[in-house]
Amino acid sequence: MSVVVIFGGTRPQGNTEILTEKALTNIKAERIYLGDFHFESIIDKRHDTAGFHDRNDDYNSILDRILPHDTIIFATPIYWYSMSGIMKNFIDRWSQSLRDANYPNFKQQMAAKKGYVIAVGGDAPHIKGLPMIQQFQFIFGFIGMEFAGYILGIGNKPGDIMADQKAIYAAGELNQLLKTIV
Amino acid sequence: MSVVVIFGGTRPQGNTEILTEKALTNIKAERIYLGDFHFESIIDKRHDTAGFHDRNDDYNSILDRILPHDTIIFATPIYWYSMSGIMKNFIDRWSQSLRDANYPNFKQQMAAKKGYVIAVGGDAPHIKGLPMIQQFQFIFGFIGMEFAGYILGIGNKPGDIMADQKAIYAAGELNQLLKTIV
Amino acid sequence: MSVVVIFGGTRPQGNTEILTEKALTNIKAERIYLGDFHFESIIDKRHDTAGFHDRNDDYNSILDRILPHDTIIFATPIYWYSMSGIMKNFIDRWSQSLRDANYPNFKQQMAAKKGYVIAVGGDAPHIKGLPMIQQFQFIFGFIGMEFAGYILGIGNKPGDIMADQKAIYAAGELNQLLKTIV
Amino acid sequence: MSVVVIFGGTRPQGNTEILTEKALTNIKAERIYLGDFHFESIIDKRHDTAGFHDRNDDYNSILDRILPHDTIIFATPIYWYSMSGIMKNFIDRWSQSLRDANYPNFKQQMAAKKGYVIAVGGDAPHIKGLPMIQQFQFIFGFIGMEFAGYILGIGNKPGDIMADQKAIYAAGELNQLLKTIV
Repeated sequence: MSVVVIFGGTRPQGNTEILTEKALTNIKAERIYLGDFHFESIIDKRHDTAGFHDRNDDYNSILDRILPHDTIIFATPIYWYSMSGIMKNFIDRWSQSLRDANYPNFKQQMAAKKGYVIAVGGDAPHIKGLPMIQQFQFIFGFIGMEFAGYILGIGNKPGDIMADQKAIYAAGELNQLLKTIV
Repeated sequence: MSVVVIFGGTRPQGNTEILTEKALTNIKAERIYLGDFHFESIIDKRHDTAGFHDRNDDYNSILDRILPHDTIIFATPIYWYSMSGIMKNFIDRWSQSLRDANYPNFKQQMAAKKGYVIAVGGDAPHIKGLPMIQQFQFIFGFIGMEFAGYILGIGNKPGDIMADQKAIYAAGELNQLLKTIV
Repeated sequence: MSVVVIFGGTRPQGNTEILTEKALTNIKAERIYLGDFHFESIIDKRHDTAGFHDRNDDYNSILDRILPHDTIIFATPIYWYSMSGIMKNFIDRWSQSLRDANYPNFKQQMAAKKGYVIAVGGDAPHIKGLPMIQQFQFIFGFIGMEFAGYILGIGNKPGDIMADQKAIYAAGELNQLLKTIV
Repeated sequence: MSVVVIFGGTRPQGNTEILTEKALTNIKAERIYLGDFHFESIIDKRHDTAGFHDRNDDYNSILDRILPHDTIIFATPIYWYSMSGIMKNFIDRWSQSLRDANYPNFKQQMAAKKGYVIAVGGDAPHIKGLPMIQQFQFIFGFIGMEFAGYILGIGNKPGDIMADQKAIYAAGELNQLLKTIV
């Protein structure tokens, strides 16, 4: 069993990253910082006879790093009450992978994984972050992945998250759980 | 009074665009197709003393076309149960504009506008699109804009939306309303 | 095919009832006004070896009138952002029916039905009524019933609903649909 | 400062009660078990010139026990993805109190309080309980009360909640907080 984390934030050592690293303490995990890569947003070609074009960007190489793992942590700051645009762009591209002959088993591979969400926001995340959690539930449901849990934390300025004791506790609990499977 | 539409889709003549054009029949409106522009995702510099960097892309020119209008229609296909990544990237950038000395009145200007959402999706949009509507409510609430209404339509293949009579009716009703203000 | 409506309101000729009757025009339907009956709230005995007690009220007689029909319309005013307490009490009692030897096929019978929701509220029902719609989705999902559609209307004072043209249109469209099945 | 708990469950020593008592350890609090009282559901007379009728039940005596306190904990099992019908009936009756000459300051009194929600459910409460949390947000918002926090726990059989370490931790944290104010 192995873990991959997909970071959707753009600030080094941001609150979401700090909280996620609490969950990863002494865990071997692949870390993917989406902001370090270049990939385009989706161009919807689902109904085009020629299908999707290869966009010649880093998307597939990111996918290749994710697929071998069986646990995915989606770690995103809450921007405007949802996941970051960069993470949304990444997930939007799954529509292409679902039709990509180079990834004939994409859905089955994803469906075999467990997904976690870790997200930190500054404006009432425990209320205003809930629609995002519901969306992850629908996303995981569509792709067939188990939604194994989520942690919402509160924080605005860098480091704020350390004061959110419930989030820190939940990250520690997740860490214990991941240790048993990795 | 004048109307601007921000299109988040990437398929010409997509269902969302068709439905939105029903609402725009015989209305003079500025149309912005986000997919025609190049703009980067946000890099969060809210807590950086140097502030945000100019990203030298089309974002500000899009903003300049939006700000003069008092009614904004956010027209987005529902991708993975939320707005398209490209539209999310656009909204994420507002965090920069809120701190941009070149747009000292950004929030006040946005707060004076009315916002509508038109969104078409293929997988139970009237249920699974609701979290996205709640997010627009929070987004508009933060920026101070009135959430004047939304239309959810169902459609997958190009043109499907024409069979969604409730959505077509609602677009016609919005059209009547816009005619009284434009 | 036949239709039963469960009314959760307590005001004769309330907005929810008016809107629902638009959907029922020239349709033969069984109408159940929950307020006309006496039934207790659930007492949770799921984990009691003796099981649930018969509460000697009208609940089962209501159930007997519902079960023969294959389409159920839940018509409830939105009180405090959800269904009325009386309708919630009725649904809570399903937990008892699920374990009632007198209704050995309760779940299968319910699972064969289609459910609609018609709800009118005065405080931004198209936004603040959405969690209730999500709850009906979960309720129908648990019991196995198809969530065939919903209509949200806006209204406060008696008769207000007549001004909600979108809701009236949707009720008319539902009426056409019901005519084809009844 | 003082605390009142409104219990919406009907099973003695149910999971919600156990979790709530964790939060109340060594705290002096008024406990109201709604199931021990008799009160009717609302009959909507908001638009009746004669106004609401006194329903001659225990509702007002419950209210009299709540109003002196400045912190209210709504402790409800999650029945069918929402608060229990008995708790919903109680909240529905607020519509009457808002127009009751005997409680001329009902809204101001409620608006001065802080509200917490503690809720335990058996079917994915961290996902399927979220609409209920959003409804409490709207309820508290309408009455002007601060939504100070919530704890969702998972449990089905009596005592299950003791295995939900995150919920137990959160109850302990709430206990520490309440100790500082009581």
